[in-house]
Amino acid sequence: MTDHGYTSGGPPPGIAGDTSSFPADAEYARSLAQAQGRASMSTLTAEGYPFGSVVSYVCTPLGEPVVCISAMAEHTINALRDSRASVLIAEPVPPGADPLASARLTLVGDLVRYEQVPDELRAAFLDQHPSARYYVDYTDFSWWRLVPTAVRFVGGFGHMSWVGAPQYTDAQPDPIGPSAEGICHHMNDDHRAANLMYAQVLAGLSDATDATMVAVDRYGFVLDVQTPAGGRQARIAFSEPVSTGEQVRAAVVALLADCRSRQATPGSTHSSS
Amino acid sequence: MTDHGYTSGGPPPGIAGDTSSFPADAEYARSLAQAQGRASMSTLTAEGYPFGSVVSYVCTPLGEPVVCISAMAEHTINALRDSRASVLIAEPVPPGADPLASARLTLVGDLVRYEQVPDELRAAFLDQHPSARYYVDYTDFSWWRLVPTAVRFVGGFGHMSWVGAPQYTDAQPDPIGPSAEGICHHMNDDHRAANLMYAQVLAGLSDATDATMVAVDRYGFVLDVQTPAGGRQARIAFSEPVSTGEQVRAAVVALLADCRSRQATPGSTHSSS
Repeated sequence: MTDHGYTSGGPPPGIAGDTSSFPADAEYARSLAQAQGRASMSTLTAEGYPFGSVVSYVCTPLGEPVVCISAMAEHTINALRDSRASVLIAEPVPPGADPLASARLTLVGDLVRYEQVPDELRAAFLDQHPSARYYVDYTDFSWWRLVPTAVRFVGGFGHMSWVGAPQYTDAQPDPIGPSAEGICHHMNDDHRAANLMYAQVLAGLSDATDATMVAVDRYGFVLDVQTPAGGRQARIAFSEPVSTGEQVRAAVVALLADCRSRQATPGSTHSSS
Repeated sequence: MTDHGYTSGGPPPGIAGDTSSFPADAEYARSLAQAQGRASMSTLTAEGYPFGSVVSYVCTPLGEPVVCISAMAEHTINALRDSRASVLIAEPVPPGADPLASARLTLVGDLVRYEQVPDELRAAFLDQHPSARYYVDYTDFSWWRLVPTAVRFVGGFGHMSWVGAPQYTDAQPDPIGPSAEGICHHMNDDHRAANLMYAQVLAGLSDATDATMVAVDRYGFVLDVQTPAGGRQARIAFSEPVSTGEQVRAAVVALLADCRSRQATPGSTHSSS
């Protein structure tokens, strides 16, 4: 797909660094669905209009959203008549940020009612949505899951794709996801000079003046970089995939050592390594 | 409509105070649509599935959401094939709050493409969504508005209703809306004792120990009240509708004087006035 929006004078400068290290869209989508808990569900009215409503959800081990909904609510009335539905899950947008730059996915498929919701899903739902304890056992509430047939993913960096349902359900949510925000805060608060060095040395943005870590996953991280020519983004890859916060710590320390060794070798750049 | 969720031992205690002073749902819905700028739009895929996506919008003077969307996006492809759509607008949910307690509305209707978007709507859109300046003039973007035929409103206080489209478009957004959050902060930071007195004297919650203003509109305000028996909400009415922040200030001062005069008159309560 084409990036078609972010400058009026031609395409924006590309992402610097190792863009091959971004997760696959199927994995991005699974990770995003796993990380959130609130979504917009679309169902069909009696007149065939698509009807959007707010739901709380948890994911099954296959990434299918599970909801617990009231017989009095429109989406339930609609789902009982026609199972066709979608669930839109969007990354929260920080105040002042461009909402079109945030990641989101739409799971398109059919709502299937549970005769009996598995205990572990009920427990996971209550764990993520404590206020649901007031209503989950009401007799007018029922449990459903959306079985996706197609997944539309729109990434936070100007890309979008259709992901096949098998690719989506087979993908594994990023194990770093739950700690990503904390890692970014830590790197930005305490290791800003390291961020800048990654941008200058590993992404080749040698005139960078500041760099903020805005995302991290098992394969690497993304920096928002300030340069005299304007803002850029840079992708830095870990030498191998990580799966714990401790491994992230070791990986960023190793990258810093790599930067210093390159700086000590005149003429050495990332592309020549 | 029935409240069916918020205790496991029977219906929750009702809202104390003057509940007749709440705005009509049509006005709530118009105010909410006016106050937000991001929504979930649902359109129909070629296979007739409802498809949810993220949009930025502004409202026409009739409260119809206006969007500027790319020909490459699924919702645009869908809308060109079938105009049936809905736009879901939800109040932001504070961290830790129950999302099902927040207000939201679904505008169900048809997407109509503008041949030429009115200048004032274009300007309003760019004013509310500055980052849209990068794409609004791209030739693959087009302007559309949703003309509602039905409006589903779910309030933040356990109520829901269908609002007729004429009632929705005829209603006026609350003039206090843009300053409501600031007013609540000011009352909670600087006039907490007054909040408590309103709850004790005007809403009859004489054993209240604390009260936080959580909403204000042209007709009055809502308090979250702490009592020895648990949390309650209270609705306090202004003596007449207000339309500016200065009038709110005068109205809350007048209510405080009212409280003090009642306290000086043993046996006087709100219900006896």
